[in-house]
Amino acid sequence: MNIEVLEKETNVIIPENLVFGKVFTDHVFEMDYDASKGGWQKPVIKKFEKLNISPAAMVFHYGQAIFEGLKAYKQVDGRIALFRPEKNVERLNKSAARMSIPQVDPKLALEAILELVRIDQDWIPTKPGYSLYIRPFMIATEECFGVRPSDNYKFIILLSPVGPYYPEGFKPVPIMVTDKYVRAVRKGTGEAKAAGNYAAGLIAQAEAKKEGYTQVLWLDAVEQKYIEEVGAMNIFIQFKDEVATPMLSGSILPGVTRMSVLQLLKDWNYNVTERLISIQEVVESYKNGNLLEIFGTGTAAVISSVSKLKYNNNILQFSDEQAGELGIKLYEELTGIQYGKIEDKHGWMTYID
Amino acid sequence: MNIEVLEKETNVIIPENLVFGKVFTDHVFEMDYDASKGGWQKPVIKKFEKLNISPAAMVFHYGQAIFEGLKAYKQVDGRIALFRPEKNVERLNKSAARMSIPQVDPKLALEAILELVRIDQDWIPTKPGYSLYIRPFMIATEECFGVRPSDNYKFIILLSPVGPYYPEGFKPVPIMVTDKYVRAVRKGTGEAKAAGNYAAGLIAQAEAKKEGYTQVLWLDAVEQKYIEEVGAMNIFIQFKDEVATPMLSGSILPGVTRMSVLQLLKDWNYNVTERLISIQEVVESYKNGNLLEIFGTGTAAVISSVSKLKYNNNILQFSDEQAGELGIKLYEELTGIQYGKIEDKHGWMTYID
Repeated sequence: MNIEVLEKETNVIIPENLVFGKVFTDHVFEMDYDASKGGWQKPVIKKFEKLNISPAAMVFHYGQAIFEGLKAYKQVDGRIALFRPEKNVERLNKSAARMSIPQVDPKLALEAILELVRIDQDWIPTKPGYSLYIRPFMIATEECFGVRPSDNYKFIILLSPVGPYYPEGFKPVPIMVTDKYVRAVRKGTGEAKAAGNYAAGLIAQAEAKKEGYTQVLWLDAVEQKYIEEVGAMNIFIQFKDEVATPMLSGSILPGVTRMSVLQLLKDWNYNVTERLISIQEVVESYKNGNLLEIFGTGTAAVISSVSKLKYNNNILQFSDEQAGELGIKLYEELTGIQYGKIEDKHGWMTYID
Repeated sequence: MNIEVLEKETNVIIPENLVFGKVFTDHVFEMDYDASKGGWQKPVIKKFEKLNISPAAMVFHYGQAIFEGLKAYKQVDGRIALFRPEKNVERLNKSAARMSIPQVDPKLALEAILELVRIDQDWIPTKPGYSLYIRPFMIATEECFGVRPSDNYKFIILLSPVGPYYPEGFKPVPIMVTDKYVRAVRKGTGEAKAAGNYAAGLIAQAEAKKEGYTQVLWLDAVEQKYIEEVGAMNIFIQFKDEVATPMLSGSILPGVTRMSVLQLLKDWNYNVTERLISIQEVVESYKNGNLLEIFGTGTAAVISSVSKLKYNNNILQFSDEQAGELGIKLYEELTGIQYGKIEDKHGWMTYID
């Protein structure tokens, strides 16, 4: 299906103080799904405008909503590149399947992302650490109170110019382990990028903030024993002889940055494992001096070094000022590839002509 | 705060074939929350119309959305009555707290429901088994991609005339136990009426439908051993010497009909318990002849008798045609109170003058 471009004039105004996810570009991609008309309808790119949507739309009541997040970068030679967008499209369709939302043609979805970025490319900030955040999402729009999958959906892509996640530089963050709330459970929706997963975690995040912690590290919901993921990031633990990350057990989001970090660590001949990691093991390794550093991985911050990890009465203290060595190395490598400063050996970047 | 009524003219058209939750009345209640303006703003009742909402509204991305469901009945003497609406308001605020949504003044919320029903009262169908379904809900409306509680919300109430849940009469339904998916887990969002909980269950419901079952009976997420609830209902098991329902463990929705059924059973001197009920106990009691009947409770159907319960290779077969005795008795009592045919000893009904 060809994407019809209804409007393409841009009027770029990027404010000096760029708050994450508050500024949007001129255009959106939109495609409607209508079961009574045989599925996905004509894809269009049009002016960013408010949606006109019934208050009885099913997304507001039964939460059928999934999303993705990825970025486009203006590289040092001026080319525009996206980091592994095909992985996001793949995960979007997996999330769709779990949440009973119809899947999209992955080729069309990828083309939609690229075409929209092409049209709004002047919105990509060029300052170091800046990029264009891309937010594809799908929502149920049928007007109905029956509890069943919607017959109508919207697949929309929005673009938002963003600054570096840590404006003052790559600074480590304090994280708190919670066993008061859980985010997800195996056989649930944790491995889907479903809107409801994020709402579920807000309360724990707010309570952590009150105690001075930036994010929450979730434990598995069944035994409350194994670490799972951090807020909007996957987590890695560097032991003396191993770099470990929780295995994808069904309740953990399979992050694209996580996947890429695993590859880089293998390239660099680290002993990398995906396995169950108990919080007890983390605490004891710290006490024994076998734990070198902890970092999170995600699209927004790329790498987040952990300054401090709190679990009940245990405080694992790392440097408050200086990010960990491996975290910095990974950050430099990944952002180097993303901004075209380092060779892209794995062919991770997709370019826009 | 006074509710401003911007429009009150009604134009009642109730179609002959009334599909659940597809027809809406003329008016809606709406109140906006704006953190920057000190909280909840002016409450209004206005014409039902589409929402004009940003595609970047947080409800579409991070799923902060909760709802309630209750009914108004036109009673046999012509009075209009609601069933325990204060309980729904109470639960709405509990759901709000869990999902990091600001709570509303319960008096105002109750008055909003009553005033809206008063204005659209001609929409309440008078045929036996018909009623006016009331759907209060709250959604996050701030335009932002940051993962944090929204600074803006809408609290909306919609009304929808509905027919009897089982148009062909009170017929038992086949139910399948799933251990392939889970709905919720303790310390999660299961006891909140959060939109995301419903999206999470759709896939299991669809798979059950394919095998000829109407609904899914969920097991606890931790041990996959204890029964929790059915689709949009709580569940009761009548053993020979006991009527039992799963205790509110944190992952089960505290149903208003559940609460009322517990009261009626106590009034009638049944041995009623709220406790852990393993699926194994249910299967064995059936085999031993100690299980008399199973029924679900919920606002939409009031009571749903179970004709058949499937758990792996076990099929517990009850009558396909005839609802269980206790189920019928409870259905008659509850609908009798709701339609004003039976004395309301507990003062459950709230009347609209």
